[in-house]
Amino acid sequence: MPVETIAWKGGKCVYIDQTLLPHKIKFVKCGDIRTLWKAIRTLQVRGAPAIGIAGALGVVLGVKNSRSETYGGFKKDIDRAVKYLASSRPTAVNLFWALARMKRIAENNSSGPVARIKKILLKEALKIIDEDKRNCRQMARYGSRLIKKGDTILTHCNAGGLATADYGTALGVLFEAARQGKRIKVYADETRPLLQGARLTTWELLHEGIDTTLICDNMAASLMAKGRIDKIFVGADRIALNGDAANKIGTYSLGVLAKHHRVPFYVVAPLSTFDLNLKSGKDIPIEERDGDEVRTILGKLIAPEKVKVYNPAFDVTPNELITAIITEKGILRKPYSKSFEKLKAYNL
Amino acid sequence: MPVETIAWKGGKCVYIDQTLLPHKIKFVKCGDIRTLWKAIRTLQVRGAPAIGIAGALGVVLGVKNSRSETYGGFKKDIDRAVKYLASSRPTAVNLFWALARMKRIAENNSSGPVARIKKILLKEALKIIDEDKRNCRQMARYGSRLIKKGDTILTHCNAGGLATADYGTALGVLFEAARQGKRIKVYADETRPLLQGARLTTWELLHEGIDTTLICDNMAASLMAKGRIDKIFVGADRIALNGDAANKIGTYSLGVLAKHHRVPFYVVAPLSTFDLNLKSGKDIPIEERDGDEVRTILGKLIAPEKVKVYNPAFDVTPNELITAIITEKGILRKPYSKSFEKLKAYNL
Repeated sequence: MPVETIAWKGGKCVYIDQTLLPHKIKFVKCGDIRTLWKAIRTLQVRGAPAIGIAGALGVVLGVKNSRSETYGGFKKDIDRAVKYLASSRPTAVNLFWALARMKRIAENNSSGPVARIKKILLKEALKIIDEDKRNCRQMARYGSRLIKKGDTILTHCNAGGLATADYGTALGVLFEAARQGKRIKVYADETRPLLQGARLTTWELLHEGIDTTLICDNMAASLMAKGRIDKIFVGADRIALNGDAANKIGTYSLGVLAKHHRVPFYVVAPLSTFDLNLKSGKDIPIEERDGDEVRTILGKLIAPEKVKVYNPAFDVTPNELITAIITEKGILRKPYSKSFEKLKAYNL
Repeated sequence: MPVETIAWKGGKCVYIDQTLLPHKIKFVKCGDIRTLWKAIRTLQVRGAPAIGIAGALGVVLGVKNSRSETYGGFKKDIDRAVKYLASSRPTAVNLFWALARMKRIAENNSSGPVARIKKILLKEALKIIDEDKRNCRQMARYGSRLIKKGDTILTHCNAGGLATADYGTALGVLFEAARQGKRIKVYADETRPLLQGARLTTWELLHEGIDTTLICDNMAASLMAKGRIDKIFVGADRIALNGDAANKIGTYSLGVLAKHHRVPFYVVAPLSTFDLNLKSGKDIPIEERDGDEVRTILGKLIAPEKVKVYNPAFDVTPNELITAIITEKGILRKPYSKSFEKLKAYNL
């Protein structure tokens, strides 16, 4: 059974502090919006879908003590919570998608008493969690069709249960393929600077009994040159309408290498990762994080203290490098803007 | 003035223990072959030309106490030392080149007394050091012609003074360009797993007052996509006659990325890095090192203890990805086998 990465229990948001993995599994019970904001900012909760869920639950926590008796006043409290949560991290659009959804549901139910709107907000957040669980399993079903028996897969960062409510996007596909008896082998990029691949992905894969090998990010090309990688599966933090996909720094590098070595490169992400306002990836805001994430590892300095650092947390892989995008509604192929339009016809 | 990475002083080999940099500069005085072997194996001394020098001095240390009075007996002692030193690391051909040279000089002087051969061996080792110093400066002069004012250069691992007697191959080129007032800016890949870029290259560049920015290996592609890298300069550990070049793991990845982004990709290496026995890079032996180098950083576990690891220390960049190879005798262009033949005509 998958572990629940982030959930609602006893009136609190309960999440795993992922900065402590794989050495320690600590569940944090969080009853206030500030702690949750910090958990997002410091990557205790990370992964685009999980951040979306944290945002939704954050709104619930942010307004639970509101004493406003009118919707007008309550709306201000919601807006404040939303604005605050939106400032936690800039790239994963699932956060803004969830926050917008929470605002909308309140607006749609604004005629009732505030106490009722509070209940509706919680219900909506729980719905987002349920949908995430179902979407992940649906993506896993679609994506696993792309995997053949004995395939060796490369993945980057963590797009697993820890990046979602409980199952994963790219890793969900691998879990499903393994359960179908496809005997896959997985190489996991360690994913500097914060080592989500080394710390989280290998932990999840080993937990599922999958044949897992850890490599440094700079070793992937060498494996591809030797023909030892059959497919690449990664997640995404924001996808533009043309299919350009932002994901953890290093993903773009894999996209270029995949093209050079003719290795299929798949992105797995729920539709909530699509930014309906962006035509191309050029305008995706890329978070730059503190240089000490690179300068130090586990708190220890690995470089001259004063050296300048460039530390973008994400990069954008252009659509032409992406073989297909696996969503909960099916597998999108190029040109992505057209295949995405078709999906919308299904009443997105 | 450059620091001497490895030298001969007072009858001992004196080298910087590079595993302690940049936090501590410790000079080790080494009087025995076993300690020097271990220094090579554990990367206290590293970098292809520096390993070659260590090999030559290692032979001197290995036979200094030989009591053989005939060349026949002494030759056995030399062979034993050479065989032992050759087992320290497999990829950098400079080691085998230096060991062969030491054997040859002994052989050429075998008619004299053993005490004299010992002196000649030391003289030859010191000559290798002197040549390295001159070669590095010559490569720097040739290579710096390729750099324009204001260029931003990317480099990988450490091909600096620390990888040679005192000046560097790829970094020597950058030092020279900086001294010519070209106001270059350098991005240094941290180079996992052993972080030679973060620990050694940034330290050397900052010491020379060069504008230096540290990145994780997986960030280079993102910089190239933004047009922020004008040229790439790296060293090499072994170059086949067709120009295929083995260098620190991750170099091949940069070669592919450079091609995709049309960034010139230069290899800087002395002729002692060419393996005259290899037609192509396919047969270059690639050292695989202990998985704990990846699983742990600074002694701390960063992944599940039992996860498998693939840890090749080098990869091979095919000649077609290399714009030019800068040697002490000039700049080689494609096809490399032909331009190398021309060099040989100059009495290599």
